[in-house]
Amino acid sequence: MTPTITAFEASPDRGRGLARDTRIRWALEEVGQPYEVRLLSFAAMKEPAHLALHPFGQIPTYEEDGLVLFESGAIILHIAENHAGLLPEDAHARARAIAWMFAALNTVEPPIVEREATGYAERDKSWYEARLPLLDARIHTRLGELAARLGDASWLDGPFSAGDLMMVSVLQRLKSSPLLDKHPALKSYVARAEARPAFQRAFAAQLAVFEGRKEG
Amino acid sequence: MTPTITAFEASPDRGRGLARDTRIRWALEEVGQPYEVRLLSFAAMKEPAHLALHPFGQIPTYEEDGLVLFESGAIILHIAENHAGLLPEDAHARARAIAWMFAALNTVEPPIVEREATGYAERDKSWYEARLPLLDARIHTRLGELAARLGDASWLDGPFSAGDLMMVSVLQRLKSSPLLDKHPALKSYVARAEARPAFQRAFAAQLAVFEGRKEG
Ligand SMILES: N[C@@H](CCC(=O)N[C@@H](CS)C(=O)NCC(=O)O)C(=O)O
Ligand SMILES: N[C@@H](CCC(=O)N[C@@H](CS)C(=O)NCC(=O)O)C(=O)O
Repeated sequence: MTPTITAFEASPDRGRGLARDTRIRWALEEVGQPYEVRLLSFAAMKEPAHLALHPFGQIPTYEEDGLVLFESGAIILHIAENHAGLLPEDAHARARAIAWMFAALNTVEPPIVEREATGYAERDKSWYEARLPLLDARIHTRLGELAARLGDASWLDGPFSAGDLMMVSVLQRLKSSPLLDKHPALKSYVARAEARPAFQRAFAAQLAVFEGRKEG
Repeated sequence: MTPTITAFEASPDRGRGLARDTRIRWALEEVGQPYEVRLLSFAAMKEPAHLALHPFGQIPTYEEDGLVLFESGAIILHIAENHAGLLPEDAHARARAIAWMFAALNTVEPPIVEREATGYAERDKSWYEARLPLLDARIHTRLGELAARLGDASWLDGPFSAGDLMMVSVLQRLKSSPLLDKHPALKSYVARAEARPAFQRAFAAQLAVFEGRKEG
């Protein structure tokens, strides 16, 4: 059965690909799995019908054959476990690729999302400007450690995996800021991932929603 | 082969069980897998030997038969996949339990850790007191949503799973604050999990390290 994901009817990022449906679309494109999209307004996301699918009233969700999932990490892991192409066959390499998914979501993403949240919620506060260097320093520490581990490899651990897909999806949130510029190896890493045809198709599909064209 | 995990030689939480080796010990106790512990000083965690195991220079790590893992989420998922007891047999229920692991680490933990980080890094700043209600409000939103989903069930989705283990490990970080008091269903949920013999053994083992007694 074709899975159905949810996405914003009107993404606040204006089609820049930062809403978390993009990473799900990308994973589905990597494994060649067609999908349906149900678009939601901000109001609908907080109504009981959607809260039954997603306890925190967010996108994305994933529905397939009676299974309902939320959390982009869980959805991508589920896709990767059920299709070839996003996780290595070797059991140890597979476990390490999954470790990079958790590193992306639990080590690299939190300080990045915190900086964004501050931008939304505290921009009018007297302390906003004074705190920015503290927030940036935390991000730089993580980026430096990540760049050191990547070295001059193309991907984090062997061939491209769901770990790279998730890490790049997280790093993309920094593209409109100068933070990534100090880490050229990570900038090339993101560019390398974005050149993948599967990413290009996923990006175009989410942009088409923003531009009001029909879903591909 | 017996796995080896790393833990703090001197945990900054003084044996309260909040360092992330406790959740790994707990998972290993739930499945009945003995383990070894290698203790690390703060200095050793940032040295090349440990950075080769953990790119962000932290604990815990997990070593077994040539496999090296970091990220508590990845380690617990690996344990749960290779032993019975932490993930349901049914494929859909299994995917949902994993979704709760990601929800714990990527939705519930970040605002909690952010509040802690602020306590360490910004306590001497003029804005510290003024920001606390903002940080607390974010945590309360998540706790309210989580409590609504839990309802009067014992666990998040059927029998106790790795999803509950991770969620409780995250909620425990709030035990020394009044934040959990407004959500009695979550307080009982944490207490119910802490009554499990496997948690008791894990807690005792990490406390023994702090008290300088021999590892169990
Ligand atoms: N941890 C979740 C985060 C989901 C999330 O933050 N979704 C955003 C869109 S990218 C959302 O729905 N925001 C609206 C809201 O939280 O009300 C995941 O990875 O799926
Ligand atoms: N996302 C990581 C977080 C690991 C983490 O924060 N470890 C702490 C101890 S609980 C640590 O090593 N802190 C010392 C440091 O970061 O320098 C995980 O879940 O394993």
